[in-house]
Amino acid sequence: MSIPPRPLSTPPRSPSIQPDPSNVPPVGDLPTSELTRHGGRALDWIAAYLDHPERYPVLARVRPGELRAALPAQAPDAGEPLARILDDFEQLIVPAVTHWNHPGFLAYFGITGSIPGILGELLAAALNVNAMLWRTAPAATELEEVALGWLRDLLGLPAAFAGSIQDTASASSMVALAAAREAVPGLEARTRGLLGRPDQAPLVLYLSTEAHSSIDKAAIALGLGTDSLSKVATDPDYRMDVADLERRIAADRAAGKRPFAVVATVGTTSTTSIDPVPAIAAVCGRERLWLHVDAAYGGSAAVVPELRHILDGCQYADSLVVNPHKWLFTPMDCSALYCRRPSVLTGAFRLTPEYLRTTEAEAEATNLMDWGVSLGRRFRALKLWMVMRAYGREGLAARIREHLRLARIAATAVDAAADLERLAPVPFSTVCFRARPPDLAGQEDQEGVRLHLNALNAATLEAVNGTGEVFLSHTVLRERTTLRIAIGNLRTEERHVARALALVREHAARLDREQRPTALGRKP
Amino acid sequence: MSIPPRPLSTPPRSPSIQPDPSNVPPVGDLPTSELTRHGGRALDWIAAYLDHPERYPVLARVRPGELRAALPAQAPDAGEPLARILDDFEQLIVPAVTHWNHPGFLAYFGITGSIPGILGELLAAALNVNAMLWRTAPAATELEEVALGWLRDLLGLPAAFAGSIQDTASASSMVALAAAREAVPGLEARTRGLLGRPDQAPLVLYLSTEAHSSIDKAAIALGLGTDSLSKVATDPDYRMDVADLERRIAADRAAGKRPFAVVATVGTTSTTSIDPVPAIAAVCGRERLWLHVDAAYGGSAAVVPELRHILDGCQYADSLVVNPHKWLFTPMDCSALYCRRPSVLTGAFRLTPEYLRTTEAEAEATNLMDWGVSLGRRFRALKLWMVMRAYGREGLAARIREHLRLARIAATAVDAAADLERLAPVPFSTVCFRARPPDLAGQEDQEGVRLHLNALNAATLEAVNGTGEVFLSHTVLRERTTLRIAIGNLRTEERHVARALALVREHAARLDREQRPTALGRKP
Repeated sequence: MSIPPRPLSTPPRSPSIQPDPSNVPPVGDLPTSELTRHGGRALDWIAAYLDHPERYPVLARVRPGELRAALPAQAPDAGEPLARILDDFEQLIVPAVTHWNHPGFLAYFGITGSIPGILGELLAAALNVNAMLWRTAPAATELEEVALGWLRDLLGLPAAFAGSIQDTASASSMVALAAAREAVPGLEARTRGLLGRPDQAPLVLYLSTEAHSSIDKAAIALGLGTDSLSKVATDPDYRMDVADLERRIAADRAAGKRPFAVVATVGTTSTTSIDPVPAIAAVCGRERLWLHVDAAYGGSAAVVPELRHILDGCQYADSLVVNPHKWLFTPMDCSALYCRRPSVLTGAFRLTPEYLRTTEAEAEATNLMDWGVSLGRRFRALKLWMVMRAYGREGLAARIREHLRLARIAATAVDAAADLERLAPVPFSTVCFRARPPDLAGQEDQEGVRLHLNALNAATLEAVNGTGEVFLSHTVLRERTTLRIAIGNLRTEERHVARALALVREHAARLDREQRPTALGRKP
Repeated sequence: MSIPPRPLSTPPRSPSIQPDPSNVPPVGDLPTSELTRHGGRALDWIAAYLDHPERYPVLARVRPGELRAALPAQAPDAGEPLARILDDFEQLIVPAVTHWNHPGFLAYFGITGSIPGILGELLAAALNVNAMLWRTAPAATELEEVALGWLRDLLGLPAAFAGSIQDTASASSMVALAAAREAVPGLEARTRGLLGRPDQAPLVLYLSTEAHSSIDKAAIALGLGTDSLSKVATDPDYRMDVADLERRIAADRAAGKRPFAVVATVGTTSTTSIDPVPAIAAVCGRERLWLHVDAAYGGSAAVVPELRHILDGCQYADSLVVNPHKWLFTPMDCSALYCRRPSVLTGAFRLTPEYLRTTEAEAEATNLMDWGVSLGRRFRALKLWMVMRAYGREGLAARIREHLRLARIAATAVDAAADLERLAPVPFSTVCFRARPPDLAGQEDQEGVRLHLNALNAATLEAVNGTGEVFLSHTVLRERTTLRIAIGNLRTEERHVARALALVREHAARLDREQRPTALGRKP
């Protein structure tokens, strides 16, 4: 039976004759007038929010379960007006948000999803393409190549590095290490797997004690297990000790294990230390090990010409990850994974079932699904491209320089303060320090003082974060509880950094007075 | 040295005294007036785009490399105005887009990032929280729990199922199978890994020949290798043959291998067939195998009360994935991974370095980073929550029912047409068929005819897709090149389905006339 073809297109409808929202048929999307009306309200809300992020406490003042309890247990039967949903967004959701946009957000690594990036996300959500194949999203595929080419050049990485965007550095590193595993001669992990291989020695992956936990997770996911991790010692500045790396490799080989990869970090999570990549690369070259560089945070700083050197040696890396969503003003999520030999990586993952085969003409085109685990891929390149264009190379560098300047101010202030102690160098925009009452200077290594200082700083952190004015996070460096001020937010100014330090000093002094008699049996 | 604290907040600035964009200092974000102005333009563009998606050919008319060549090879030195970037978006990017919003997009699985979902993405990009820890994003963490609870109930899954949002079903299935691997007694994959384990038999993972390639990728990533996959035969309707599953398990056990998990599919990618989950679950229970259900596409249909039965047996699953970004009108990416024993899953991945530890009060709160590989996590729940509220249970069901109705119309038309042949049942909204000239009916199994029909349908597909009016994809079913019409777009109407069939018939008839003399040595 024949179905008569109808004309392809109906004439454009005028916006003025859009159906009334209260009268929408039960199929189809909402009318686009709803998008422009409520989208306009959302934009106005966002603008006011970004203009005055300090209205809100930076760390949400809710208890676990509080938002959940405020929401219905079940989805509504009938659709609700967008106006009501946006009301609830403002009244219920926002108060439960920890505000990464607050200029006092100095925890972990501060980030900014800048205005060009927000617009990019809006457009990407509207296009809603799936960039699994070139054919399904030529624009997303090629813009990903272009944007990552731009970024590669901004960072001074070799032109041979090809890239893809993953959601996070965790995924990027896992994918890179899967490629490293695939590159192990004779292992054929892709087909044969790792179990029941008595002829194959256990693999060893080297990383410093300061490397990110995502590397441990990658080893878990990839079936290597945490036992495969060899954690190399660090020097006094928390950089990988290359002599220890070499000793470990030799010992592992002697013990019948098989070293296969080293992860070097440019900008570790605790102190932002920079592993000596040139020396590590030399070891990797000699020992034929895959070199993966985790520059998720620090790498972006190479956009600043005078900081290019932070990526010295990275031209020899087999893979490298840098996260524009960390310090390149791009909204979550956007992690750039570069690979010097992309065919190894795609060889590990390429797998084309019949329903995803495309025609010969496209055989030379990139199919981004071959770059990792996820078949579906958002149009993440759009926001990154818009950010790089809107700021330009100079604008990106100026903003990173400003963060470096603010960190230097903080470090200088810490160094000058008798009641603060800096605990690590400051190669980037993160300052590690602690409160240390002046009269305890020189006694830090006494067990009682050490414990008191750790308790004092932990309590200070909670007190400072409780003010809602700033949010700091912590780490532990050589058994010392350490506070971190990490600057990565475009709205952070000198006054916020100064306020953070003032709050630490004020609360630490108070808490020291309260706690010292019990802790040390004496008053300050 | 003391840094004098400054007042925390400056008084709100009036929007009317926003700095002029041409005069923005080189640090800080763009002024928010840029967001509202250009965001308004973007919203207007999106509204016009969604009102008239048929302006564009559905499949982009660009050659590989064409967009790349049209863009500068390097990022600009100086920042560019947003107006120019949006101009380029419209003039360069959009023509290179394959339009998943086009109502004639009937390839793969049609999707819709609906208006409430687009607004959700806009707000999520603005908040730009990282939901790694409860503390860093209480709203995102709890809304993820709430939204997935709503969805679970909409689908009729047991309350014991806890969920998390992953980017794609590929990631969800990989994470689920990592949990399955972790649940293997004595294996301790997390710590000990899979290499150098002579005491551990190779694991076997069962899936049907129709299961999705993401399962193969998961086996690769997890270090099991494709050799660990046992592909179970299907019945004539492309459903897993449970007798074959049982035979394979018995044979593998007899051969000293270790069955550990079965992946059942509710809505396979080629034909949307539904594996007999109740029987598979019974086998898994008896054999103590992890049951993972891939309901990425089909699962959403359980929102329709009369289709609840498609998830029969899934209450016994250990894990289940359903993708709201596939058939629940949520923009990419949003994949819901449910787990009946979430502690097994989080036990496989939980790993808390010092810098991510939080205080005792929050120890009972969910930290979503424990649910998989990625530490960073966008606020993906917001769009899903907004979609479920804006449409409500009834609205979601009505829209899915409409797609089922359109698919029935297509199937009926195929069945009634002498020159079309349906090749699989239609349990959901996808129709598998091919062009088959009427005079070749009954001769399909002759080798020459079979090859001619495959070539004819491949050529027909390219010709139809070349019109720009519709986009179909293909698969191969029992060596027959098969065309698919997959309805999942809220803008698709009867006329688009009818047009797709008419185009197939028209081009197939023409191509048959052209090709048959060469292919079969005779005219049609």
